[in-house]
Amino acid sequence: MAKSKMEYWFEEMHTSNVKMSIRVDQHLYSGTSEFRRIDVFDSPEFGRFLTSNGNVIFSEQEEFTYDEMIVHVPMAVHPDVKRVLVIGGGDGGVARELSHYKEIEVIDIAEPDKMFVDVCRKYFPDNAIGLEDVRVRIYYEDGLRFLRKCQDKYDLIINDATDPLGHEAGLFTKEFYGNCYKALHDDGIMVYQHGSPFFDEDEENCRAMHRKAFKSFPISRVYQAHIPTCPAGYWLFGFASKKYHPIKDFNPERWESRNIKTWYYTTHLHKGAFMLPKYVEDILKEEE
Amino acid sequence: MAKSKMEYWFEEMHTSNVKMSIRVDQHLYSGTSEFRRIDVFDSPEFGRFLTSNGNVIFSEQEEFTYDEMIVHVPMAVHPDVKRVLVIGGGDGGVARELSHYKEIEVIDIAEPDKMFVDVCRKYFPDNAIGLEDVRVRIYYEDGLRFLRKCQDKYDLIINDATDPLGHEAGLFTKEFYGNCYKALHDDGIMVYQHGSPFFDEDEENCRAMHRKAFKSFPISRVYQAHIPTCPAGYWLFGFASKKYHPIKDFNPERWESRNIKTWYYTTHLHKGAFMLPKYVEDILKEEE
Repeated sequence: MAKSKMEYWFEEMHTSNVKMSIRVDQHLYSGTSEFRRIDVFDSPEFGRFLTSNGNVIFSEQEEFTYDEMIVHVPMAVHPDVKRVLVIGGGDGGVARELSHYKEIEVIDIAEPDKMFVDVCRKYFPDNAIGLEDVRVRIYYEDGLRFLRKCQDKYDLIINDATDPLGHEAGLFTKEFYGNCYKALHDDGIMVYQHGSPFFDEDEENCRAMHRKAFKSFPISRVYQAHIPTCPAGYWLFGFASKKYHPIKDFNPERWESRNIKTWYYTTHLHKGAFMLPKYVEDILKEEE
Repeated sequence: MAKSKMEYWFEEMHTSNVKMSIRVDQHLYSGTSEFRRIDVFDSPEFGRFLTSNGNVIFSEQEEFTYDEMIVHVPMAVHPDVKRVLVIGGGDGGVARELSHYKEIEVIDIAEPDKMFVDVCRKYFPDNAIGLEDVRVRIYYEDGLRFLRKCQDKYDLIINDATDPLGHEAGLFTKEFYGNCYKALHDDGIMVYQHGSPFFDEDEENCRAMHRKAFKSFPISRVYQAHIPTCPAGYWLFGFASKKYHPIKDFNPERWESRNIKTWYYTTHLHKGAFMLPKYVEDILKEEE
């Protein structure tokens, strides 16, 4: 086929000195919302993938890792989640994983970017099916503004926002963590993207995030996953909690009894995900 | 500086459809040995790095992960390692980590490629210092041929060979695993590079490797690390053992008492490294 002879590549700078390139079959969509440029590509290696301002947000071949790890880890710890707030998450992948849990009554999604939701509905039906769950309500609002109205309202807040420097900068401020704390019930948990710790350019963001969460919540731990399209293939998540400890209050039997099908998460891996490399432990400890 | 304006990149195909690029400051060395082309580069992000036939073998900024994980994991399990064989390992990084252990009496290195050793001595003194340990003996021989002469001789064999398809193909055969078994004492351990499981192109190698080790040793487990220059940033190691189990016989207190300085390995991480993603567990189980 002629297709395989053409050199057609998407490239992402992971730092100014390291680049990841993905061979592309087709550029399916390009649009600019109020917040960002959104593109959709088909690729032989990662399947279909979406970019925001030129950064890969997720791909068909690996989104399971991110969505499973940000949902099942807190859900296997908190014994009774009824009300969940997802900040960002307009693609539906997080909602899809949440929809496996029968005890959840409300899944609120605060996603300011309606174009992002529409693009995902059209091009990523396997993610967007999560938005069809009857418990889901989408609020096309800025996450920080949405949170300011909330008090003692949620059992779990998932911050699915990815870009600490762009339009989502407000979701990485001290005020944001304080508002999350206020919006949670007394035994609430908040999980968030903690970035990639390996490259020097990313390390300061990673430090600042831990500093803020550690000051705002009595329990603040970090866990990890391998996500190939992330810088260095390595991603951290934050687990900030008012009462439950991610390991001491983890109930593997209860989670296993649900029979949720996964590709990445296991109850073994749950524990292993909190066992971090020495250099990451050192970075975090220095901010505590 | 003009340097920062020049686009000068080393590129490695991780699959035919995914590429990693590293900005280069200088190309310090290029030579072709009997076995392969060897190059050395300086880069702003990974420091100095070495390539073999165009594949990154290690870089200053991340070699610690690989060398620590392949040495400290078995050393924290086996209670009394006196004789070690390293297959490949001519750069000295594995020997450097082994040199922290006083009880070791012999570190034999079977490295056919003398040019590789010479290049590492010149350009990577922080690795090659491992070769200066008085217990180290370098045999410039093919690993498989060296092994055929060995019987009941070692407590630990570390297969540091990286290229299952090139000149080191013999080190990934069924005969190789059988010869390692024979060369080990009754309570010996063998560790080896298990490759990256994420991309389809790598998965079959990963399966074949587990199949062979699982048939050759009573205990055969796989553990993981994040190594940014590896395909998908994700690397597996094999732990094949005649007697000791990597978790049940793991002695964290004994290892801690040695006070070895690390950047990646911790005794927590030791356990976590064996807790694998579901899709990796499934691949391995299918070959058992």
